Amino acid sequence: MSKEMLINQNEYLEVGIHIGTKVKTPGMKRFIYKVREDGLYLLDLPTIDKRLRVAARMMARYNPKDIVVTASRIYSVAAVAKFAEITGIKVLTGRVMPGIFTNPNREDFIEPELVFISDNRNEKQAVKEASKTNVPVIALCDTDNWIKFVDLIIPCNNKGRRSLSLIYYLLAREFLKEKGLIKSDDEFNYKVSDFEAKVEMKAK
Amino acid sequence: MSKEMLINQNEYLEVGIHIGTKVKTPGMKRFIYKVREDGLYLLDLPTIDKRLRVAARMMARYNPKDIVVTASRIYSVAAVAKFAEITGIKVLTGRVMPGIFTNPNREDFIEPELVFISDNRNEKQAVKEASKTNVPVIALCDTDNWIKFVDLIIPCNNKGRRSLSLIYYLLAREFLKEKGLIKSDDEFNYKVSDFEAKVEMKAK
Repeated sequence: MSKEMLINQNEYLEVGIHIGTKVKTPGMKRFIYKVREDGLYLLDLPTIDKRLRVAARMMARYNPKDIVVTASRIYSVAAVAKFAEITGIKVLTGRVMPGIFTNPNREDFIEPELVFISDNRNEKQAVKEASKTNVPVIALCDTDNWIKFVDLIIPCNNKGRRSLSLIYYLLAREFLKEKGLIKSDDEFNYKVSDFEAKVEMKAK
Repeated sequence: MSKEMLINQNEYLEVGIHIGTKVKTPGMKRFIYKVREDGLYLLDLPTIDKRLRVAARMMARYNPKDIVVTASRIYSVAAVAKFAEITGIKVLTGRVMPGIFTNPNREDFIEPELVFISDNRNEKQAVKEASKTNVPVIALCDTDNWIKFVDLIIPCNNKGRRSLSLIYYLLAREFLKEKGLIKSDDEFNYKVSDFEAKVEMKAK
């Protein structure tokens, strides 16, 4: 039985989607398949691929306006902004305020049905809020992330620019396919680079 | 902020939903909060409660006929039968044959969109089949279950009669509520004992 990945394996490896950090939390141990000579823990690629699919499938079950995606670092903010533009999913960037999902008196109060976290180290508050309201939490988790309150973990490099671009590119594409908005990968008119933070001036 | 559980905490404790086994697999470690004097590992109750909710919410996003629930032991078979009768979800009991989700030439071929496992020790084949087809896998997992290929773990005692009855009772009730088929717990016209395997003759 051949099992195809969402994208050619080399493209995954090239952006280092499987390259973790030098820190391993107990919860992330199960997704680590080895430690590299330089001390970096490596994540299991088939699991990354499968979880990205499962996450996209689950998200596609919801109305995009009922999903909130959080991002707090420059590379994830850029990738998530593109992802949101394409899918219609809501974005929360920067500091999430206590009460945003739990206090109806707040002006910024929202009631998501599903929360998707880019990095729970910086987006802890959103995880807590979701957990208080029993909203399912999907999260990108690197080898050093603590996974308390995360319901569905997508093990991956959630720090690198190219890794994050590829992750949100694939999630957007699969989301549209699962929703039936596009029929095949060919109809997805975006490039991975559209999801990248522009960090340098381009020579013209 | 008060956080209510799905059912009175004492009812959970009474059926031993949190009482695991004397074996702890690496993947289940994170859900264990202590070991009892007699050597049994105990599972964290708030997590059990939260995951039951999250699982019911996720299931409710699907058409019941696209969900398959597996059961292989007498107590789970009885509980799942009732669960299926109420929700319309499909059941697979006993031995799951290789190819059932993957080989369209089989007479018993089905293509679930979501698979729910009662005990992956005995229902390994269903987990594998689901994983091959990238179908999300939710599973009841006791402290001794291996969690490979499980996407959403519901930590719990998945062996006891009363624990299993309560689990499937709550899942059925929450499923109907999430689907909007009943408005409150009061409208759920079943008792936990309806989900129990009848193991003895009743005196009349």
